Amino acid sequence: MTQETWQKYTEWPLLGAAFLFLAAYSILVIVEPPAPYAAALAIAIWSTWSIFAVDYIVKLLLAPRPGRWFIRHPLDLLMVVVPVARPLRLLRPLKLRQVMDRAPGTAIRTRVMAYVLVSAILLIYTVALSVLSFERSAPNANITTMRDSLWWAVVTTTTIGYGDYYPVTAPGRWAAVALMIGGFAALGMVTATLSSWLVESVAAATDRRTEAAETSSSGELARLTTQIGMLQDQLARRQGPIETDSGHAEDTHKEPG
Amino acid sequence: MTQETWQKYTEWPLLGAAFLFLAAYSILVIVEPPAPYAAALAIAIWSTWSIFAVDYIVKLLLAPRPGRWFIRHPLDLLMVVVPVARPLRLLRPLKLRQVMDRAPGTAIRTRVMAYVLVSAILLIYTVALSVLSFERSAPNANITTMRDSLWWAVVTTTTIGYGDYYPVTAPGRWAAVALMIGGFAALGMVTATLSSWLVESVAAATDRRTEAAETSSSGELARLTTQIGMLQDQLARRQGPIETDSGHAEDTHKEPG
Amino acid sequence: MTQETWQKYTEWPLLGAAFLFLAAYSILVIVEPPAPYAAALAIAIWSTWSIFAVDYIVKLLLAPRPGRWFIRHPLDLLMVVVPVARPLRLLRPLKLRQVMDRAPGTAIRTRVMAYVLVSAILLIYTVALSVLSFERSAPNANITTMRDSLWWAVVTTTTIGYGDYYPVTAPGRWAAVALMIGGFAALGMVTATLSSWLVESVAAATDRRTEAAETSSSGELARLTTQIGMLQDQLARRQGPIETDSGHAEDTHKEPG
Amino acid sequence: MTQETWQKYTEWPLLGAAFLFLAAYSILVIVEPPAPYAAALAIAIWSTWSIFAVDYIVKLLLAPRPGRWFIRHPLDLLMVVVPVARPLRLLRPLKLRQVMDRAPGTAIRTRVMAYVLVSAILLIYTVALSVLSFERSAPNANITTMRDSLWWAVVTTTTIGYGDYYPVTAPGRWAAVALMIGGFAALGMVTATLSSWLVESVAAATDRRTEAAETSSSGELARLTTQIGMLQDQLARRQGPIETDSGHAEDTHKEPG
Repeated sequence: MTQETWQKYTEWPLLGAAFLFLAAYSILVIVEPPAPYAAALAIAIWSTWSIFAVDYIVKLLLAPRPGRWFIRHPLDLLMVVVPVARPLRLLRPLKLRQVMDRAPGTAIRTRVMAYVLVSAILLIYTVALSVLSFERSAPNANITTMRDSLWWAVVTTTTIGYGDYYPVTAPGRWAAVALMIGGFAALGMVTATLSSWLVESVAAATDRRTEAAETSSSGELARLTTQIGMLQDQLARRQGPIETDSGHAEDTHKEPG
Repeated sequence: MTQETWQKYTEWPLLGAAFLFLAAYSILVIVEPPAPYAAALAIAIWSTWSIFAVDYIVKLLLAPRPGRWFIRHPLDLLMVVVPVARPLRLLRPLKLRQVMDRAPGTAIRTRVMAYVLVSAILLIYTVALSVLSFERSAPNANITTMRDSLWWAVVTTTTIGYGDYYPVTAPGRWAAVALMIGGFAALGMVTATLSSWLVESVAAATDRRTEAAETSSSGELARLTTQIGMLQDQLARRQGPIETDSGHAEDTHKEPG
Repeated sequence: MTQETWQKYTEWPLLGAAFLFLAAYSILVIVEPPAPYAAALAIAIWSTWSIFAVDYIVKLLLAPRPGRWFIRHPLDLLMVVVPVARPLRLLRPLKLRQVMDRAPGTAIRTRVMAYVLVSAILLIYTVALSVLSFERSAPNANITTMRDSLWWAVVTTTTIGYGDYYPVTAPGRWAAVALMIGGFAALGMVTATLSSWLVESVAAATDRRTEAAETSSSGELARLTTQIGMLQDQLARRQGPIETDSGHAEDTHKEPG
Repeated sequence: MTQETWQKYTEWPLLGAAFLFLAAYSILVIVEPPAPYAAALAIAIWSTWSIFAVDYIVKLLLAPRPGRWFIRHPLDLLMVVVPVARPLRLLRPLKLRQVMDRAPGTAIRTRVMAYVLVSAILLIYTVALSVLSFERSAPNANITTMRDSLWWAVVTTTTIGYGDYYPVTAPGRWAAVALMIGGFAALGMVTATLSSWLVESVAAATDRRTEAAETSSSGELARLTTQIGMLQDQLARRQGPIETDSGHAEDTHKEPG
């Protein structure tokens, strides 16, 4: 079996596992259910771990050059090792490259913005969830409810950082760094999109003026072609019965004017 | 009646309603008038709500495909459901697309900047107003006066976020998120505009040098046309009285040099 | 006298007045000299005011259309009304437009960056100075020394905003808003410059590849010109003594290949 | 000996000295070893100082125009005078210009991002280290452990600035300013890279459409060349045995159609 076949068959099961993880983790962190339920959720989370782990190992073995595949796919490893990275797979069905390949000019920007928005919301929610789970039990922590955690995540992504809430534990800070990098990228993407749109709008306005010049250049080429055609006419006529009617020749001469 | 006709007739009444809402809401929040006056202002605010609601329903019914119109115009619905979103309509008369369509090259940037500035000021004022109304009565809130609220809104829009003031209530935070998205877009727009201007300036400097090369290419075409014209002359002359004067022919040959 | 002549003569006196203002204001705020010295500095500051005021009035009177000039030169009025805006005039000798006009391609970016750096330093220093003078005497103010004020100004310009220092008085906050706008513009300018540089670098790498294609198009035109030249030769020869040597004609025919 | 030869021979020793400095300084600040070990580390640090100082003096003497070299190489002087600037030399082997010169189009962006990432990590680590050493002993300082210092550095570079940690000493603040400038540049670089990538993607989508138009223009040129070739044929044939077959001439005439 090739890696492609495996990926095709595991696409949906992995998405399901990612979604299951996110749901189970959300309930575990937000609802904080009593022991028996919590145990069931923990089992669900561990089973998603095993699905991701098996998928990773099979993919590694099926790869034509496993060493190279290992280096080129750090995200796949991350999703096995770091549980909270697993929801990233939910972004898979709308792969950015695919999204852009089929799009004409302006539609690209709309799709990129939609992609950035969906990614940002997923990232904010997942990081808020994990930071809450890390911080809640820490002494002198200030992020202790889901709504404060979400608020903190939004304030961080937009690089505002009021400082009313901030993580104090090591894992909470690592999750924050992931969010910051995401926020950085999102801000850059918004600016890039607006930039691309504005550059194009200004260029379109400028083009309307330069078009005249270009048309004249293209027109010159067309006129050239016409003149050559007439030359051929003249020669063809000459090759027929000898026409020495100078008046006709002058007419021909005037035409290109 | 078509939707266009309706929009044409309701353009100004809706603008008036948006302005009335902003004025009434401003007085209600900043001045905090005694009960009878407050009631009058509340009535004014509710009447703007009914105007926006009627307009929305009529537009929906007049739309050729109501379902599609519903999905494509979320802002219209937002203005009905969320009162503080109504002043957004005040931006309508200077629609960004219209502003840009009629503008030549560089003027676009000036207009975009003016648009961004006006939008930013309107957004900052409206959000400051609504955050104040949400926060004021909350325990341990720190935004309790209009000038602190305005200061907080400016500090947030510029993504500085000192943390001397920040919303603590849920609706206050939602309004803050709207402001953050606006600030994000404004920052991106400023960068995009400066970027577009700089790219053009550098390109202009580079163009002055590449122009020489292009001129030569255009000149080559012109020379080609001249040569063909001369060819036609030669042929025309031959077709007239037979000129076997070889000296004349040599002259013609030299001319293109 | 025309406005241009006046501007030419007042260029250096105004620069001197701006520098005098900055020096006197710096000493007044940082050193806080005893009464007699402070009075002397106050007189110096008022004299710079009178210089700027006289200059503004004369310029307004000399303008061909005073109303239009009034609207188009808000900065000149600002420098008269708001004392701390006066050092802005120190940026005059290195006017951005002039700086860019004479520069070839890449040099523009270096100059723009230098201009942004100098403007940022001047803005940070002036705003730090004025915020200190406004805040120092306010109750519960936290910006009370020049080094804290400078630190606050840097933290604000870079949009970081720790919140360890922040203005609490109305004039201090207005000065902060000026700084924020400056920081916004500076950040946008840095991004725009890096963007312009990167776009050009990538384009240069791409160009090296597309050049081949363009060269071939230009070569086609050159070949065309050569062919036409040969046609003229053929005709010229025919017009001379009749050459019916078919071998020669075939030679000519082969050449264009 | 020329400066180039010297640079070639000292390239690796200087890198080694920079690395030695970073290692010794890290141990000194993080581990805080007892007196005898600390003394050994201090000696190691001073020896790296002497290496950088000697290198600087020799380079200055070997420069064809020492005055000019002095002005154009402020970073070399900085690395001698400010110890914590020395690790900057570790970025030398992957000089940005070299990195970009050999890269084709898209690869440039990947390399630039890798360079920005490595620089950011080195800058964050070095600044965190030096800020910790400056702040630790200060009264009312809040950055007192390496992990808080690293967290503060990340929060500053991303321009978030919660304000949970911030430097209070003058040297700590100067180091912070260096970090802010680096963060500014990094943010600008990320945006520029995304911008460059998006502009290219949109252009590629647009190109696919405009290609048709360009092909037709290029095709017109090709057709022109063919017509001229046929003209030459006609002339060549005429110059051979006289062909007065008018039918043949008409055929020729039709061909260009």
